[in-house]
Amino acid sequence: MRAAIFRGGDLVVGTMPVPVPAQGQVLVKTLACGICGSDLHAAKHAHRMVEVTRRIPGRMPMDLSRDIVFGHEFCCEVLDYGPRTEKTLKPGTRVCAMPVMIEADGPKGVGYSNTYVGGYAEQMLLSAPLMLEVPNGLPTDHAALTEPLAVGVHAVEKGVVKGDEAPLVIGCGPVGLAVISALRLKDIRPIVAADFSPKRRELAVKMGADIVLDPAREDPYGKLTADKRAVVFECVGVPGLIQQTLEKSPRDAKIVVVGVCMEADAIEPMFGIVKELSLQFVLGYTPEEFARSLRLLAEGAIDAPALITGKIGLDGVKNAFQELGNPERHTKILVEPWR
Amino acid sequence: MRAAIFRGGDLVVGTMPVPVPAQGQVLVKTLACGICGSDLHAAKHAHRMVEVTRRIPGRMPMDLSRDIVFGHEFCCEVLDYGPRTEKTLKPGTRVCAMPVMIEADGPKGVGYSNTYVGGYAEQMLLSAPLMLEVPNGLPTDHAALTEPLAVGVHAVEKGVVKGDEAPLVIGCGPVGLAVISALRLKDIRPIVAADFSPKRRELAVKMGADIVLDPAREDPYGKLTADKRAVVFECVGVPGLIQQTLEKSPRDAKIVVVGVCMEADAIEPMFGIVKELSLQFVLGYTPEEFARSLRLLAEGAIDAPALITGKIGLDGVKNAFQELGNPERHTKILVEPWR
Repeated sequence: MRAAIFRGGDLVVGTMPVPVPAQGQVLVKTLACGICGSDLHAAKHAHRMVEVTRRIPGRMPMDLSRDIVFGHEFCCEVLDYGPRTEKTLKPGTRVCAMPVMIEADGPKGVGYSNTYVGGYAEQMLLSAPLMLEVPNGLPTDHAALTEPLAVGVHAVEKGVVKGDEAPLVIGCGPVGLAVISALRLKDIRPIVAADFSPKRRELAVKMGADIVLDPAREDPYGKLTADKRAVVFECVGVPGLIQQTLEKSPRDAKIVVVGVCMEADAIEPMFGIVKELSLQFVLGYTPEEFARSLRLLAEGAIDAPALITGKIGLDGVKNAFQELGNPERHTKILVEPWR
Repeated sequence: MRAAIFRGGDLVVGTMPVPVPAQGQVLVKTLACGICGSDLHAAKHAHRMVEVTRRIPGRMPMDLSRDIVFGHEFCCEVLDYGPRTEKTLKPGTRVCAMPVMIEADGPKGVGYSNTYVGGYAEQMLLSAPLMLEVPNGLPTDHAALTEPLAVGVHAVEKGVVKGDEAPLVIGCGPVGLAVISALRLKDIRPIVAADFSPKRRELAVKMGADIVLDPAREDPYGKLTADKRAVVFECVGVPGLIQQTLEKSPRDAKIVVVGVCMEADAIEPMFGIVKELSLQFVLGYTPEEFARSLRLLAEGAIDAPALITGKIGLDGVKNAFQELGNPERHTKILVEPWR
């Protein structure tokens, strides 16, 4: 089968054997797979990611000398089941799943792995118990947004405790936009959102932000409702941003770090101390949040089409990684490996 | 009156005018005042503290070209009241108070201020509404521990949410010991505590820690009860410690930053992200927590005498700032300015 392979620090299109499903696994055809900011980070900071993963007990780092296929935001079609696996959904059924393979010694990631290829390949494996059928009528493209939406749903669950917080979203890329959607669905308002890009600000309004501004011209922290606890969602993920939230957040604010900064960073703890701030780092979502996100998309609760700015085949992946650097042109590019 | 004055980066004993109480203020004689780690930090990093304070809206930095008298852990004796101030406690009454002066435009700090001298002076001012009478029978020395105990009580209130967390205290200086006391009083156990100093470890046991170890020989994080949410109290406050907690804490841990690190610090956010850690910075206490701490000391719930390792006059302050660098010799030194 064909795949866009991360090999020697570069993205190349090549062929690799079709994976063989073991017990409890399903072979699927990848219909669409979104390119995530984390994929761009991983390509850029692969060695750093490996080094950090190595220092976390129980985590298996990627071996960069071997092929890796990224892609963890996928919608697929069931092809075949592994041996002794209950065929719950018949071949041809469209499914989404968390990018995780259940193994005897714990879950293994899909997409940053030497074992399990991600969605930038024509076919891949899923864990049968994690498959969720795409509801009738939900286009494949939209179903592929389940994973990034779940990231926003999860961040809001972790950040919003009382339900009457004053939210501020810093950065309106796919993660920030998912957070805005999730806040709006829970009616946590007014939602203040900030991004340097006019296009991203336009999307923030579409996703339900109430006050959207350019941080180069106005201070987003100045727009927070003063008598509520501020919840600041850091959705950028580059060095310096955490310190900025510490420095700018009002007293008692909760800062939810959703952006994935893979580099070392500098902070001045005194700002956190003097204002008794809290930082909640978040990653991923629960199975319930993932399933809820698919349901929300099926119900049309999110303006999903607005987020999709491009569709490409495997040959376009390398170029798309470059293109996504321009927030005016692109938000979410879907890879359709069958093209 | 005499005072130990922070002047030109040095601690000198000198004289200054007796402060005059305004309306709502009380003139008191300082009976005893503990030396806090923050005072040592402030003396060492005074310019840094000023710089950070300047960058926080609504905060008034110290003017280092003018005299400052540190000391915010005091027990005093009422001498006289300002004009038009209700004389709730008669002269001679022993009192404790939060180190805060209530002014029309908000509270002002005592002890890191050019306006209000702290407890390293023979006399000082308190805000009348904040005075708490020292209960009969509670020695002055012990009452002076109200403030540092309140820091621990507050940190535990912020850190312990459910009451069945697995606590770990990193650093058993006065702050760590106060946290251990507060954990024990809430029966949040087993309490794991770590310090390089044998003397400090001995005190940790006295204050109620269940498992006490030398981090140079054993990994304190390895002693955490695995099936409970870990709450890690960072009670050291030097650069590198926050990163260490991020790197070593188990998944979902809550890290309560009680140590006051005034310098810039480096972190690797990926460790927080991958394990979904949270960091809660804390400072100070509520009036209720302060009052509760005084009550706890009066009830003998804390082995207060064990913490007091020295008593000095004003002439001994400068030397004590040096001595406190040795954890084997000293934990809490009380200044008795009347000596």
